[in-house]
Amino acid sequence: MLFEELRQEVYQANLTLPELGLVSFTWGNVSAIDRESGLFVIKPSGISYQDLRPEYLVVVDLQGRVAEGNFQPSMDTATHAYLYSHFPDIGGIAHTHSPWAVAFASAGLAVPAISTTHADTFYGDVPCVPAIENADMVADYELQTGQAIVEYFSAHNLDPTAIPAALVGQHGPFTWGAKAEEAVYNAKVLETAAEIAHHSLQLTHGPLNVPQSLLNKHYQRKHGPNAYYGQELES
Amino acid sequence: MLFEELRQEVYQANLTLPELGLVSFTWGNVSAIDRESGLFVIKPSGISYQDLRPEYLVVVDLQGRVAEGNFQPSMDTATHAYLYSHFPDIGGIAHTHSPWAVAFASAGLAVPAISTTHADTFYGDVPCVPAIENADMVADYELQTGQAIVEYFSAHNLDPTAIPAALVGQHGPFTWGAKAEEAVYNAKVLETAAEIAHHSLQLTHGPLNVPQSLLNKHYQRKHGPNAYYGQELES
Amino acid sequence: MLFEELRQEVYQANLTLPELGLVSFTWGNVSAIDRESGLFVIKPSGISYQDLRPEYLVVVDLQGRVAEGNFQPSMDTATHAYLYSHFPDIGGIAHTHSPWAVAFASAGLAVPAISTTHADTFYGDVPCVPAIENADMVADYELQTGQAIVEYFSAHNLDPTAIPAALVGQHGPFTWGAKAEEAVYNAKVLETAAEIAHHSLQLTHGPLNVPQSLLNKHYQRKHGPNAYYGQELES
Amino acid sequence: MLFEELRQEVYQANLTLPELGLVSFTWGNVSAIDRESGLFVIKPSGISYQDLRPEYLVVVDLQGRVAEGNFQPSMDTATHAYLYSHFPDIGGIAHTHSPWAVAFASAGLAVPAISTTHADTFYGDVPCVPAIENADMVADYELQTGQAIVEYFSAHNLDPTAIPAALVGQHGPFTWGAKAEEAVYNAKVLETAAEIAHHSLQLTHGPLNVPQSLLNKHYQRKHGPNAYYGQELES
Repeated sequence: MLFEELRQEVYQANLTLPELGLVSFTWGNVSAIDRESGLFVIKPSGISYQDLRPEYLVVVDLQGRVAEGNFQPSMDTATHAYLYSHFPDIGGIAHTHSPWAVAFASAGLAVPAISTTHADTFYGDVPCVPAIENADMVADYELQTGQAIVEYFSAHNLDPTAIPAALVGQHGPFTWGAKAEEAVYNAKVLETAAEIAHHSLQLTHGPLNVPQSLLNKHYQRKHGPNAYYGQELES
Repeated sequence: MLFEELRQEVYQANLTLPELGLVSFTWGNVSAIDRESGLFVIKPSGISYQDLRPEYLVVVDLQGRVAEGNFQPSMDTATHAYLYSHFPDIGGIAHTHSPWAVAFASAGLAVPAISTTHADTFYGDVPCVPAIENADMVADYELQTGQAIVEYFSAHNLDPTAIPAALVGQHGPFTWGAKAEEAVYNAKVLETAAEIAHHSLQLTHGPLNVPQSLLNKHYQRKHGPNAYYGQELES
Repeated sequence: MLFEELRQEVYQANLTLPELGLVSFTWGNVSAIDRESGLFVIKPSGISYQDLRPEYLVVVDLQGRVAEGNFQPSMDTATHAYLYSHFPDIGGIAHTHSPWAVAFASAGLAVPAISTTHADTFYGDVPCVPAIENADMVADYELQTGQAIVEYFSAHNLDPTAIPAALVGQHGPFTWGAKAEEAVYNAKVLETAAEIAHHSLQLTHGPLNVPQSLLNKHYQRKHGPNAYYGQELES
Repeated sequence: MLFEELRQEVYQANLTLPELGLVSFTWGNVSAIDRESGLFVIKPSGISYQDLRPEYLVVVDLQGRVAEGNFQPSMDTATHAYLYSHFPDIGGIAHTHSPWAVAFASAGLAVPAISTTHADTFYGDVPCVPAIENADMVADYELQTGQAIVEYFSAHNLDPTAIPAALVGQHGPFTWGAKAEEAVYNAKVLETAAEIAHHSLQLTHGPLNVPQSLLNKHYQRKHGPNAYYGQELES
């Protein structure tokens, strides 16, 4: 069986979704890629987290074709494949329907960078990418979802490493990271940042005023050459 | 004892209500029907979920008369009976007082279809059926509640299979499905969809704009002849 | 030791407060009265629920004097005593700082009767009794809190059996019932009703329209001579 | 190893943060000081609560220099050091990103003293101290954060013993107390008070009216020479 270790990582990361309160039922999926072979491991479609086993995960190539596995991969596989193809520095992807993030997506709004809780992980607003038009008329809806994210980041000059997340309009969040575990971590940060931003917006009913210098400071405390968070095990 | 297997299904589905955070105390009930005999199995009235045993469930006919059981059936039995009589394709029904859904019901508002989380299960808004007028003057309040739902679906040309849920004004949600388990699943989806819609409406304070094509796409990914979700075990 | 059985009931009812998510730390207390002797059993002040033992409960008379016990009774003892003295049909009282109810109390607003979840237990709005004026100048603040509740019910012609709860302005809820367990049950219903009402008011931003006939129907389904809820064990 | 007992207290207090729902991941830290030596014990940076061991805690002096320990101390160590230096009566400090408190901080608003739940612990509004300007340009950001809090309390004539908490704008809450455990207790009270205040403000959409006499009464019931809460073990 291919990728025993990666399989285990993806399996654990999938189980973390319900543990962190990010999914009900089967509403989420995590994958991770082996860059050398260009193959990635992803959750099978519609299998509950409690029934999931490492060997049920599906190995898929960057065209979304199954390379190994007896189950059908997640419906969102083509979105994952497209993101891996065009964001070469990422190693894991998570998709959920976590309610605060979905609330912003349903409103067609970015999650604004208004606190250090947000800025510690996301170096700016997490954008809301408009949903695919005529979604029911296209054959490759999930592929186009990946395309829409990549094009939005490119058109708005956003760095997917500095802002490792996007909302898809009326749908929900995709997050990514160096590994599957980091993608799930980022999904939880995004959900918390969305919750806080929602509460704050209800208090002010106006735009929130956060200085760029504070966003810089907090992002740089944890990321990049001058970071000083943690025990220096990751640099 | 009649319907050992159905009893077990209804018992488990009732226990799932508190596990999913949908009920406090005894504020909910689930039933399922044996279409061949026209009898259905329902929770007894006022028994706590922790005291409930499969043999306490009550077997009732479509006129709401007890066919087997030592306990009184749920107060809402006549509503269940009416829905089974007039929605011939459904096999299970759940009723809860889950707070986000009740909030929309108390406001007399439908849960609007504004996200794919909603559209994956409900093919359009979940309507709010006006409460029975002069409720304290009628002898058959619970029966009329069933009637009000059925008439609303008929008058508005709604398909109870495509929209397997209704709110009753100032009261709460009824959901249904092929089986008891699916009715409970739909109760959880409705609660989550209501929560998300509430949050979104607070962000926009205006109507939310979701394209019909997206609703089509997401409903059809999971339902009907072209569905491609899951492991093809159910079709 | 006096009242072994009542002690056990009050002990269990106190433990139910954190189990139902109604209190943090020591922010709540439950009592129950033995009407024959005119003595009641109440939680000691400032003891955590996890350290509480049945024998730590304090027995108090209707003047608030300790009749048995090594601990000081709850600070709110005089409020309990006054309510027992003037509401002769009640047997148990609960006080919490549950957040949704406190939110209405802090806003100086009643919890409006807008849904059957509310009306199943409370036959009308749960009133918000204005806080004691010059609270820091009076020697018997807690006694006056009881007085304020009783006077409000009397002045507004409210029946404490039909509406077994009150908010005290800027403070929080007191609920009562036939027994300690019922007082705690009513505390949970009030918290849920307040949560639902809050959500509904955010949706409509206007008064909510609920017919009196529906409130009548739902209250009478569960209470009074024509009630038909449950298994007829309590009537 | 220095301070075995203090270490144990700080260890337990750190673990209480996730137990009370105040932190996700590593987003919080607690410390406590030994006033005799002028050294304090603090959580190491970026270590998860589940991996934390008492011996991993770091001993630091009031200049923020490590006196004992193999790990790097929390990034926020200089803030703790500054607060200990200028608030001589405090013995423990907690910092979290709890969402309701962060929502007020992100809006740049104080948590208003609108209920006795707040006033039992905080004798007035919990202020929101403006964030450091040009945060990314200063070498000693965390030290300046401590300075900003201390200067704000001094400029506004606030007593850090009577109001043992501050929000830092766009960042989050710092709370303190006689010991580490009390600092954590105050963090939970602040989070609850912020939640209640948020809900109340949504109900009134205007300033909330709470009499000073009520704040006096409730603060004095629990604090100072005339307090009568609890079992008189602490005075």
